[in-house]
Amino acid sequence: MASVDEAMSRAIALAARGLGTTSPNPVVGCVILDQRGEVVGEGFHAYAGGPHAEIVALAQAGERARGGTAVVTLEPCDHTGRTGPCTVALIRAGVARVVVAVADPNPLAGGGVKTLREAGVEVVTGVREGEAEQGNIAWLTAVRRGWPYVIWKYAATLDGRSAAIDGTSMWITSEAARMDVHKLRGTVDAVVVGIGTVLADDSRLTARNLRDGTLNIRQPLRVVVDSSGRTPEKARVRDGAAPTWVATAAEVGVGPDGRVDLAALLAGLYRRGVRAALLEGGPTLAGGFLAAGRIDKIIGYVAPKLLGAGSPALADAGVHTIAEAIDLDYTEITQVGPDLRFTAVPRKREG
Amino acid sequence: MASVDEAMSRAIALAARGLGTTSPNPVVGCVILDQRGEVVGEGFHAYAGGPHAEIVALAQAGERARGGTAVVTLEPCDHTGRTGPCTVALIRAGVARVVVAVADPNPLAGGGVKTLREAGVEVVTGVREGEAEQGNIAWLTAVRRGWPYVIWKYAATLDGRSAAIDGTSMWITSEAARMDVHKLRGTVDAVVVGIGTVLADDSRLTARNLRDGTLNIRQPLRVVVDSSGRTPEKARVRDGAAPTWVATAAEVGVGPDGRVDLAALLAGLYRRGVRAALLEGGPTLAGGFLAAGRIDKIIGYVAPKLLGAGSPALADAGVHTIAEAIDLDYTEITQVGPDLRFTAVPRKREG
Ligand SMILES: NC(=O)c1ccc[n+]([C@@H]2O[C@H](COP(=O)([O-])OP(=O)(O)OC[C@H]3O[C@@H](n4cnc5c(N)ncnc54)[C@H](OP(=O)(O)O)[C@@H]3O)[C@@H](O)[C@H]2O)c1
Ligand SMILES: NC(=O)c1ccc[n+]([C@@H]2O[C@H](COP(=O)([O-])OP(=O)(O)OC[C@H]3O[C@@H](n4cnc5c(N)ncnc54)[C@H](OP(=O)(O)O)[C@@H]3O)[C@@H](O)[C@H]2O)c1
Ligand SMILES: [Zn+2]
Ligand SMILES: [Zn+2]
Repeated sequence: MASVDEAMSRAIALAARGLGTTSPNPVVGCVILDQRGEVVGEGFHAYAGGPHAEIVALAQAGERARGGTAVVTLEPCDHTGRTGPCTVALIRAGVARVVVAVADPNPLAGGGVKTLREAGVEVVTGVREGEAEQGNIAWLTAVRRGWPYVIWKYAATLDGRSAAIDGTSMWITSEAARMDVHKLRGTVDAVVVGIGTVLADDSRLTARNLRDGTLNIRQPLRVVVDSSGRTPEKARVRDGAAPTWVATAAEVGVGPDGRVDLAALLAGLYRRGVRAALLEGGPTLAGGFLAAGRIDKIIGYVAPKLLGAGSPALADAGVHTIAEAIDLDYTEITQVGPDLRFTAVPRKREG
Repeated sequence: MASVDEAMSRAIALAARGLGTTSPNPVVGCVILDQRGEVVGEGFHAYAGGPHAEIVALAQAGERARGGTAVVTLEPCDHTGRTGPCTVALIRAGVARVVVAVADPNPLAGGGVKTLREAGVEVVTGVREGEAEQGNIAWLTAVRRGWPYVIWKYAATLDGRSAAIDGTSMWITSEAARMDVHKLRGTVDAVVVGIGTVLADDSRLTARNLRDGTLNIRQPLRVVVDSSGRTPEKARVRDGAAPTWVATAAEVGVGPDGRVDLAALLAGLYRRGVRAALLEGGPTLAGGFLAAGRIDKIIGYVAPKLLGAGSPALADAGVHTIAEAIDLDYTEITQVGPDLRFTAVPRKREG
């Protein structure tokens, strides 16, 4: 016997398994309870083009779904896309009640609740809405406003430096922190860096197992923000191990500062199906994103080290005086190996 | 009924109440158990010149101490200083057993255990030694090596800046963090800054109540490290609200870099009775202390803010390449109001 709340928590946890492989679709989890409240089916949306969570869960439940409850993290779809609408599948299966956490903001997919109600299915919405919203925050934010959710990740010492004065930076953070970053890369659709980072570090930017170097099956799009197309032909980022987009000002558009226009860049990424993007630096590009108000979340790995000299983790972000400082709120502070990891979100300005 | 371990924990907690007011003496706590193990007396050393913890606890216990156990965080003193030796008082009170956490490293005070044993008192040592050592870490470290325990405290943004590019820095951290710093000042014997900080901020460096401005009864010595005596006559640090030492190179000695010799400075502070010193910056002086290996503990207040430009919290510390980075270990990570506070200690180099 599971309560509807418990079933929704479980559905949210199931949904999270799809993070990084469902774009441009959201992550969705579904739990089917039979008439007596027993869990008889579970499913999640695993990859774009694959079956929706409701279909997987209904298939597992079979006849036991009849008269039961479908608990689903996102409003069931009502349109015929690559798969048939989930509303129809739920009605056919004879489900008596559908419990939904978050409404679908996507104009193409919405309308599921209405269709279900018209078919006589009882629909409850808003159950564990906040929790489910967080589980899908990147996708929901991106779809609502039409450009990707941007996470800026950086690594620095306690005194805010990302390289020593002679330019050496390997490694500031621990192996545990670097593994954590590779996991993070596995949950996004694109990894974005500036040309400065490509020229300095010649990074691969793939999501891989750090121990044996094997690549994840699905790779985020690698994006180099490079106004004048200076990315070398032999740069590792062009190695073919994953798709790469060298975003030049000629292609994307020129911003107010003569460099790649960041709003146009983000719109272009959205059109390419990117819903969550990981900005991995460097300091100049991060400053540009921050000055433009285009960062949704910051993840910092702060090594217990001091340098006292060397390049800063963040360059000009348009702040001239303390009152203009970009204010954040910590959302999590934890340790990853010997390093401190924090997550923070920009504080909403009042007024 | 309290076990000896419980009594020692209590004694350690009692000892901590003396932090900041006992220098140049250690903090000490004492609990007296009667023959059946009931707590019959408690005491701590409250201020230099005041009665020792054992004397306070014995006075409370009276006749009930006879045949009982004295549980004390530090080896009882055996010399006649401003007060008579505690060994004599314990023996006279008829205590059957003395339980000690940490041996006294002070050559003037040591020998207490030996004297007690010679008088037929059973002595147990090393109970909760690690915990008691931590409670007295500044004093023990200072006495063992002959120069003060140095805590470097700083405040910075996430990107390691302590002022915006126009020089503004009030306030980087929250009122909660600033109140925490004033509490910290109340636990040390000296507050140390460089002449750069005095010229830039004209700080008072007193320990006071931030709400109403009232001064703590006991004030740490204010120390300005000022090679050529540039501290202005009208500087607030000279306002008479607390003792002040302008430490010039002429008085203290000239270091290898032509500035105030930091080893000589610390020896001078020790001679003045300073056991715990709080280094409050700025970036240049902190770099000098770090380069000289003279920092025992770091307390950082990291505001959830980004500046992208402005002065760094730490200047040159003699590190040229990443392999030379000053490695620390976090010992605590917590939040103070909206800010993050960490404590860290320099990692022991293997060797
Ligand atoms: N610690 C970390 O987490 C971390 C992460 C990454 C990099 N890094 C370090 O950062 C250093 C590189 O720094 P960087 O600042 O030169 O690299 P960057 O931020 O990666 O690249 C900056 C460049 O991006 C281009 N760009 C295009 N459009 C832009 C826009 N709208 N706003 C801002 N930039 C735009 C500009 O060059 P064009 O105008 O020519 O296009 C700009 O010079 C390396 O040493 C690397 O190791 C550290
Ligand atoms: N965020 C924070 O926690 C914090 C804390 C304090 C200050 N600050 C900021 O730091 C800025 C001042 O920075 P600063 O670096 O000029 O100040 P500082 O570190 O307080 O003072 C540096 C000066 O101390 C003197 N000094 C003497 N002996 C020294 C030695 N052995 N090693 C190093 N220095 C020695 C030197 O001048 P002489 O050779 O002339 O003696 C040196 O220029 C201010 O803007 C202040 O607001 C920030
Ligand atoms: Zn569907
Ligand atoms: Zn004593």
